[in-house]
Amino acid sequence: MDLQRRIVERRGEFLLFALTPPRRATSPVKSQAIADATVERLQALDLDGLVLYDIDDESDRNSEERPFPFLPTMDPAEYLSRHLHDWNIPVVVYRAVGKYDEPELRSWLVGQESDRVLSVFVGTSSRDKPVATSLTRAHALRSEVRPDLLLGGVAIPERHTRKGDEHLRLLSKQAAGCAFFVTQVVYDLNAAKNLVSDYRYECAARGQDPVPIVFTFSVCGSMRTLEFLTWLGVDVPRWIQNELRHAVDTLDASFEQALATALELIAYCRRLGVPFGLNIESVSIRRAEIESSVHLAARLQAELHRAD
Amino acid sequence: MDLQRRIVERRGEFLLFALTPPRRATSPVKSQAIADATVERLQALDLDGLVLYDIDDESDRNSEERPFPFLPTMDPAEYLSRHLHDWNIPVVVYRAVGKYDEPELRSWLVGQESDRVLSVFVGTSSRDKPVATSLTRAHALRSEVRPDLLLGGVAIPERHTRKGDEHLRLLSKQAAGCAFFVTQVVYDLNAAKNLVSDYRYECAARGQDPVPIVFTFSVCGSMRTLEFLTWLGVDVPRWIQNELRHAVDTLDASFEQALATALELIAYCRRLGVPFGLNIESVSIRRAEIESSVHLAARLQAELHRAD
Repeated sequence: MDLQRRIVERRGEFLLFALTPPRRATSPVKSQAIADATVERLQALDLDGLVLYDIDDESDRNSEERPFPFLPTMDPAEYLSRHLHDWNIPVVVYRAVGKYDEPELRSWLVGQESDRVLSVFVGTSSRDKPVATSLTRAHALRSEVRPDLLLGGVAIPERHTRKGDEHLRLLSKQAAGCAFFVTQVVYDLNAAKNLVSDYRYECAARGQDPVPIVFTFSVCGSMRTLEFLTWLGVDVPRWIQNELRHAVDTLDASFEQALATALELIAYCRRLGVPFGLNIESVSIRRAEIESSVHLAARLQAELHRAD
Repeated sequence: MDLQRRIVERRGEFLLFALTPPRRATSPVKSQAIADATVERLQALDLDGLVLYDIDDESDRNSEERPFPFLPTMDPAEYLSRHLHDWNIPVVVYRAVGKYDEPELRSWLVGQESDRVLSVFVGTSSRDKPVATSLTRAHALRSEVRPDLLLGGVAIPERHTRKGDEHLRLLSKQAAGCAFFVTQVVYDLNAAKNLVSDYRYECAARGQDPVPIVFTFSVCGSMRTLEFLTWLGVDVPRWIQNELRHAVDTLDASFEQALATALELIAYCRRLGVPFGLNIESVSIRRAEIESSVHLAARLQAELHRAD
């Protein structure tokens, strides 16, 4: 059963792997080499889809210094069309819609094959930032131009912790056409459960079926990566921070941590009847962390109920 | 091995059951009947100790209306000496020290047998409340008068969530003579883990051994009890609130919930090397909830490593 059907039929139980495209300054030859190495690395996994992030300079949303410098990355749509043509399973292309003006977004939408591409639209990271296209407008545009192209939205458990209304945002996005949601990296199990639970009961109250929520997991191999996760807005509970800081092997500890969190969420979603997917990424570009993320994806794949 | 030795040797793995004494207006005959019924109910359990709470009118700490009316309860020391003389295992008598003046507290301390009685001193619930004896003074008094009488302190994971320094408070109380800590009712596993973790690593940094932390659990059989828990300052995560609200049987759901939380904390403390105890109470006086609490204690007892 393909990814699109799993989403449309609200069956979930699918596995994605997320990549950030190479830096914009990377040469075409080098970019192709990176793409080829990635495809080879992921081939052993029986993935349902690939996710390509669209990185925006988010320094405006956080006044603290970015632990890793921001270097503009290639447009994921470009990376896909130029360097990943051999990739034959669906790709979820992120669009930071504020970066593109309407004609640009429209022509991209028109050019996509819906059996190969899905998209996730992301709004801007801060209210004060000027946008070429707002999230609301982008949603309307896609409904008008490409209603057949499966669209997802972002879900942020941390925002639910602060404001308590993320489940209502999800339902608004659903009304605007979103057929699935993808979280940012999950370290705070409690926050994720709170969001799933509130979303599920609000769906029930409205007589709606919940759509798949895709939980993102990443390992963390160093204190620098931990710092970066925190900078990205990921709530890492104190006890997990302590565990990583004092571990003999931070990467191993983080792997076990991410695995345990994912297993708990899988069991929780199944019990609650909320369809879910898993998305694994490496927030760091260090080889050991990437390899550990691939290993995590392989391990979690075994947990999914994928019989058609 | 008795409770005192488990505490002094920092071995933990003990089981307590907590009671609130009857209302002060209860007749002596009725109080004795209550005590007898309680002893009978608890006899089947192989408890290491009983906890007797000292209830203070805490309406000043919370402007919201108390879900159950406050009715003054009997002094736990009085309840013990008058009605529980047949009880032959150790009793942890709470003292809301702000209620007693120094001579009163001193004479109580002098009169206790340290093989039968331990105490937990509790400060006042609000800064604005006039106190007969401050917590600091009470600690000093006990060190002076009865250094042999084992003393505990309260540990509040919820305060750690708000202020992040509860582990430092524990260490100060330890310096003032506390040999164990008892939490309020735990529903927020994450908060409890954060506190245990920060406490453990701060102990390590100071070259000190952690003392036993006793985690309190209670079932919740109705929305009214849930409201009361929240009023008492217990953080109940949204997803657990939802679960209890929508459960076919709230009491059953809560039992499973409390059990799962306790099992996770047990595993976590063992892994971290922090000695722990368990304390079960019923925050409600409804028979079904009391019986379920006793059942929870019996179930958890089987999990403890109690070989000498």
